[in-house]
Amino acid sequence: MKPTITVFACSPDEGRGMARDMRVRWALEEVGQPYDVRTVSFAAMKQPAHLQRNPFGQIPTYEEGDLVLFESGAIVLHIAQRHAGLLPNAPDARARAIMWMFAALNTIEPAIVELEVAGFTERGKSWEGEHRAMLVQRIRTRLDDLSRHLGDAEWLDGAFSAGDLILVHVLRRLEDESILQDYHALCTYIARAQARPAYQRAFQAQRALFDAWAGKGTCAG
Amino acid sequence: MKPTITVFACSPDEGRGMARDMRVRWALEEVGQPYDVRTVSFAAMKQPAHLQRNPFGQIPTYEEGDLVLFESGAIVLHIAQRHAGLLPNAPDARARAIMWMFAALNTIEPAIVELEVAGFTERGKSWEGEHRAMLVQRIRTRLDDLSRHLGDAEWLDGAFSAGDLILVHVLRRLEDESILQDYHALCTYIARAQARPAYQRAFQAQRALFDAWAGKGTCAG
Repeated sequence: MKPTITVFACSPDEGRGMARDMRVRWALEEVGQPYDVRTVSFAAMKQPAHLQRNPFGQIPTYEEGDLVLFESGAIVLHIAQRHAGLLPNAPDARARAIMWMFAALNTIEPAIVELEVAGFTERGKSWEGEHRAMLVQRIRTRLDDLSRHLGDAEWLDGAFSAGDLILVHVLRRLEDESILQDYHALCTYIARAQARPAYQRAFQAQRALFDAWAGKGTCAG
Repeated sequence: MKPTITVFACSPDEGRGMARDMRVRWALEEVGQPYDVRTVSFAAMKQPAHLQRNPFGQIPTYEEGDLVLFESGAIVLHIAQRHAGLLPNAPDARARAIMWMFAALNTIEPAIVELEVAGFTERGKSWEGEHRAMLVQRIRTRLDDLSRHLGDAEWLDGAFSAGDLILVHVLRRLEDESILQDYHALCTYIARAQARPAYQRAFQAQRALFDAWAGKGTCAG
């Protein structure tokens, strides 16, 4: 059965694949599972039909028969557990790959999201610069630890896994920041992941959707 | 084989069970798995021996034979997948319980942690109050959605699960804030979880460890 995912009707990143549906699209492409897309406008995300899918009114969601999931991490893990290709079969390695999904989402992503949020909500405030410096330092601490661990390895722990997939997409949120430039091995790691055919297909799919809307000059979901 | 977890040598919460090892202890108690504890001082957390367990230098970690895990969410999920009692057997319900673990860790906890961090790092700054109000509003938005979803249900989705376990511990981080008082159903939900015998055993175990150190008047790890 083909699952259906929800995505932004008009992604605020203008087709750069920064929204969290990209993770789910990428996972589905890695395992070769076709899917349908339902677009949701910002207004519709807060309406009952979508709140039934996700009480926090966000995308992506995932529908497959009677199962409805939200949270990109949970959806990617579900896909990885149902299909081969994103988790090792050996139990210990499998547990570690899942561990890296949690690490990306709970230890790395919050610090990065905080910098993004500050960019929106603290713009023009007298303390914007002071707080920003504190947030950047927190991210650097995480990236120092992460890059020391990764070293020159190709992937986090042996073969490419759902842990790499989530972590790479989390790190991509720093693309507009100069911070990443100080971490050469992390930049190479991200580029290596982005070169994967499955990543490319997922990226093009979300990009095509944005281009179609932009071409119409309207962006109603 | 008895797993070994790492915990703070002297928990900065003074035995209130707020540190993330509490989640792992609670999960182990729910499934009836005995465990050993290795205490780690703040200094030791940043030394090679512990960085081998967790490159980010945090507790808890989990060692079981050759397997070494970090990230409380990953550890709890590992325990829940190896033992009965924390995840439903029906595949869809199981996926939803895991979804709630991710939601607690990626959608709820970051907003709460941010308020905690600000309490430490922004104390005395002229903009402390202004930023705090913004952070509190973000938490309220999440709790509004969460409490609307929970309603008067006993647990998030049928029987108590690892999703409830993580979410309850995340919400406990708000205990020192007045915010929670506006969410009666959430307070009842937390209290219901805390009344579970497994929670009580886990709480007493971490409390006894703190009391033993405090009794000695020293807190070296």
